[in-house]
Amino acid sequence: MRHFVQELEELQRRLLEMGGLVENAIHRSVQALVEHSESHAQEVLRNEARINQLEIEIDDLATRLLALQQPMAGDLRFLTAAIKINSDLERMGDLAVNIVERALDLIHLPQVKPLIDIPRMAQLAESMVRKALDAFVKRDSDLARSVLLADDSVDELRTAVHNELVAFMQRDPAVVPQAVDLILISRHLERIADHATNIAEDILFLVKGVDVRHHAEEAEKAAPARNE
Amino acid sequence: MRHFVQELEELQRRLLEMGGLVENAIHRSVQALVEHSESHAQEVLRNEARINQLEIEIDDLATRLLALQQPMAGDLRFLTAAIKINSDLERMGDLAVNIVERALDLIHLPQVKPLIDIPRMAQLAESMVRKALDAFVKRDSDLARSVLLADDSVDELRTAVHNELVAFMQRDPAVVPQAVDLILISRHLERIADHATNIAEDILFLVKGVDVRHHAEEAEKAAPARNE
Repeated sequence: MRHFVQELEELQRRLLEMGGLVENAIHRSVQALVEHSESHAQEVLRNEARINQLEIEIDDLATRLLALQQPMAGDLRFLTAAIKINSDLERMGDLAVNIVERALDLIHLPQVKPLIDIPRMAQLAESMVRKALDAFVKRDSDLARSVLLADDSVDELRTAVHNELVAFMQRDPAVVPQAVDLILISRHLERIADHATNIAEDILFLVKGVDVRHHAEEAEKAAPARNE
Repeated sequence: MRHFVQELEELQRRLLEMGGLVENAIHRSVQALVEHSESHAQEVLRNEARINQLEIEIDDLATRLLALQQPMAGDLRFLTAAIKINSDLERMGDLAVNIVERALDLIHLPQVKPLIDIPRMAQLAESMVRKALDAFVKRDSDLARSVLLADDSVDELRTAVHNELVAFMQRDPAVVPQAVDLILISRHLERIADHATNIAEDILFLVKGVDVRHHAEEAEKAAPARNE
């Protein structure tokens, strides 16, 4: 067996490979929607198998490293973070597939309206995923924290999309099927952003050993600043 | 520190406490919807804090046990399963809160139609959670497998709910806001069922050491039966 440090690097490398595939899946899924592109949609569906395969490999590797070694506190946090990040990335991949399913449905229906807020949500969500992965590589808690802030903007856009599409449906019942698809897509993007937020929280825990889930954050803010 | 075995029992006890709270949250959230009951809704919102607290406690305990001991293969699988089950349960709790948010919105709006399929979805989802937790306690792979099968029925109901509500909106635009809320609730229930499925998969891995995620299942079915 290779040296433990090399195994940890291999684990990180695979997580980043998976992150890259997931980012790409999110991007292509919304491109499939905006450009009515069946080929982008098919690309996302094809790549899902690789994402699922990586999930299993990463899980196996992380569990094996937990078993074979007695990791120190920092390595242990890294391994448990890896297991969680892995699961969040895999679910993001699933959500990209869900977006594609809706996009394929929409290809055959007349357009409700030019899409503005949904591509903006997608951009935000993608950039959250990218920043979370960057924060992971650099162990950068400020960058991780910026992901948490971006989540609020995604939620605002989701509410705007919802209200606008409800109004459209009420004015013109013919657009109901399309508008419902778009509302569901906006929810999928919101959930992708939620998973990026989970990853950012895991990274804050990994870097600082501080739990920021469920407003433990507020308690931390109230405490005196620490050097990192 | 107590004996390792006692600590593992404590971990299982807390996971079951959390599971009970989550089951209750799902049940009450749909009761809030069906009975237009604000008090059931408030109960779910109040209990969320305890679920979130338990999530952190369980995670801490599982991570500590991974760190302090060098667990054997079976215990290691139990600890990593506990970390995953914990995260699935917490997300189910969040989804019950999402259902409640929609239910509170619906209290003030005229009813679209008597609810039949959504309570049925909720019943199925609840029973999946209960069976998954039972399977966990009893290390019962057949029971875990039955959870995987139930997921298909939930997906069918979700499609039926979707199509029916789209038709309602097209006939009567006045019901659009309510119908969209109901579609979203059906999606939340579907996701609760998905999390129960994740838990069942973790239990199959825990009991048999076989990975059934992502259709590794089919490969397994094709293999000769084994004694358990």
